[in-house]
Amino acid sequence: MIEVVERGAVRELRLARPPANALSPELMAALTAALARAAAEASAPAPAAGERVAALVLSGSPGMFSAGLDVPYLLTLDRAGIHVMWRNLYGLLRTLAASPLPVVAAITGHSPAGGAVLAIHCDARVMADGDFRIGLNEVRVGLPLPPVILAAMRRLVGPRQAERMSVSGALVSPAEAARIGLVDEVVPPDQVVERAAAIAAELAALPREAMAATRRLARADLVALYDDAGGQGAAADEIEAVLDSWFSVEAQTTMRGLVERLARKRAGGAGGG
Amino acid sequence: MIEVVERGAVRELRLARPPANALSPELMAALTAALARAAAEASAPAPAAGERVAALVLSGSPGMFSAGLDVPYLLTLDRAGIHVMWRNLYGLLRTLAASPLPVVAAITGHSPAGGAVLAIHCDARVMADGDFRIGLNEVRVGLPLPPVILAAMRRLVGPRQAERMSVSGALVSPAEAARIGLVDEVVPPDQVVERAAAIAAELAALPREAMAATRRLARADLVALYDDAGGQGAAADEIEAVLDSWFSVEAQTTMRGLVERLARKRAGGAGGG
Amino acid sequence: MIEVVERGAVRELRLARPPANALSPELMAALTAALARAAAEASAPAPAAGERVAALVLSGSPGMFSAGLDVPYLLTLDRAGIHVMWRNLYGLLRTLAASPLPVVAAITGHSPAGGAVLAIHCDARVMADGDFRIGLNEVRVGLPLPPVILAAMRRLVGPRQAERMSVSGALVSPAEAARIGLVDEVVPPDQVVERAAAIAAELAALPREAMAATRRLARADLVALYDDAGGQGAAADEIEAVLDSWFSVEAQTTMRGLVERLARKRAGGAGGG
Repeated sequence: MIEVVERGAVRELRLARPPANALSPELMAALTAALARAAAEASAPAPAAGERVAALVLSGSPGMFSAGLDVPYLLTLDRAGIHVMWRNLYGLLRTLAASPLPVVAAITGHSPAGGAVLAIHCDARVMADGDFRIGLNEVRVGLPLPPVILAAMRRLVGPRQAERMSVSGALVSPAEAARIGLVDEVVPPDQVVERAAAIAAELAALPREAMAATRRLARADLVALYDDAGGQGAAADEIEAVLDSWFSVEAQTTMRGLVERLARKRAGGAGGG
Repeated sequence: MIEVVERGAVRELRLARPPANALSPELMAALTAALARAAAEASAPAPAAGERVAALVLSGSPGMFSAGLDVPYLLTLDRAGIHVMWRNLYGLLRTLAASPLPVVAAITGHSPAGGAVLAIHCDARVMADGDFRIGLNEVRVGLPLPPVILAAMRRLVGPRQAERMSVSGALVSPAEAARIGLVDEVVPPDQVVERAAAIAAELAALPREAMAATRRLARADLVALYDDAGGQGAAADEIEAVLDSWFSVEAQTTMRGLVERLARKRAGGAGGG
Repeated sequence: MIEVVERGAVRELRLARPPANALSPELMAALTAALARAAAEASAPAPAAGERVAALVLSGSPGMFSAGLDVPYLLTLDRAGIHVMWRNLYGLLRTLAASPLPVVAAITGHSPAGGAVLAIHCDARVMADGDFRIGLNEVRVGLPLPPVILAAMRRLVGPRQAERMSVSGALVSPAEAARIGLVDEVVPPDQVVERAAAIAAELAALPREAMAATRRLARADLVALYDDAGGQGAAADEIEAVLDSWFSVEAQTTMRGLVERLARKRAGGAGGG
């Protein structure tokens, strides 16, 4: 589910779960493990052959970075199953936030909801130009935005745009995302991975300790969101509130309506052509 | 003093106190009451006829959103009167901040001082293009900017622009306001209410609970400013400091000078043409 | 080392330590003293002749605002010497942050590392257009960015750009600095001091008490960084951590390599032509 491409000191982790890189529990577990493995290798003695990994690129498929949570599958789970899924998502996001290696997102295409959430926890974001959309559209599927994710968005784009984007559930173009600071750069689709890898390589070439210490300092507020939220205390409360929202009549109705519309569209598409 | 225009699920509250929509105690009370009434109707059973209000537009007169506090009148009040006025203003701002219905400001023209203050407590701001000015020019009339208002400005435009704008008392054009994030959109004057109503209608059409919960979360810091400041404790201190500033020699001299210049200008204008 | 130019109510403090206005202990002491002297004069009775100083401009030399810390000299100091230097730098930055007079930076040219650090503690920044660079490139010389300086950068440009700029040690053009908010205005080199003085004069002409109170409020978070960090408690810890970084193998190796390259370049330049 994760394809690994070595590029010298830069390792690309490519989401590879067709058709839409939807975040299933398995994909989340695989990505968390790949991030942990890279971190372990970076702190181990240098390998006999090849270069030691020093920075990461997180990429998707052409046209689709990640469609976010796998809603059709998740709708089959009970509260215990959703609880596990949500804890694992928070665990993945904390791993991304606290990664000792810089992670540059190569947003290769659409990046709604959970796709955008992954990207906003990376060090930098390069997005493919084109008819793609990115944003936190959770409200449009009936889910309130969880507090940690709003806070992570806010540190990227500021309180005003974080409020506007999250309350309206807006999905925006790459150009608009760059204008408000949700992504750092927009490049042609065939250059997005290459450009992300170049940024990662530049970070990997800096004085290692000074860069790492400055990153820890600059990202401490992001990590702290999860230590507040994801520890034994506050975290448990936040996840309970998220679960209540997930199983609300509004959320269940909206998500089921969405899934049915998607299914009919696919069936219609298959029948008609 | 408040004209109400129903637009389906969107209700427009139009400031209507000629000539400049200056914020007298009565206008503040009327606006606070109109906001409370809309909130009560939104949570009551649906009306027999017509649509239930789900979002608000706060608009002004063509060319003048609001000139801010009614300084000529306020200069006739003693400390007790100013105390009441200032508590009522904070009460109005907290009501706007905590409104369970989204409020989109249709800034139909000039919006100095208290006019800008109303707008920065709304969910979004659409400003009329033209030779209009908006800003927190309190310093220019001899009044230090109150802490809660600086904090509300800061969450819109960031600490750098909030410092620059408030210390210099700058009044800026719609284009500059959009550039720094003080307003979200600039449109031709005859489209400003319509555009604000469209944004409000879009918010009203979202899944209700998810939108409301996300708004509460995203605006909790804004409301907290008033619960810190406007409660029994810190609030009382802040208002006392604001009163001391109001009755300082510098503020009284500057405000009286301003009022006299305005009066002479009007008299000259009336005499001359 | 500091040239003083009186411009009515505005006093220009011009860094004058050839060739690069590098921040030696003496230059830091001279600047701290000049800021304190201006503050004392501003609160004393008006002078018999001339105008009382009400605002400051901090300028550099044509093409070079300040190259930052004087690394070649500092490499000759032991831990006690570096400790004193660093405490003095923090003392200077706190004095700038808490200056009762507004200080506008006239960034007359290059402004890396410590040069940028001075500028971000001023009230506003005007930068000379041209082939100049500004940024916090500490990481590139092997030094982690100290917490107080990251925090001061963050309040100017927001957490996203502060992270990006400080982790990558980026030096950027005047245009890019203006785009991200690191400077407020870019003007031709021969107008930079004049423009900074005009901004300072405008601030000096505002109602004095209202302006001063609003500045204190708007800059309280900046001053607090140093009262947290520079007091008896947290401050001592932060400086100890900064000293550990300074004497790390990586920092010493990187700084000595840099100084040697600069020396060879100068020698080569002298020999070759």
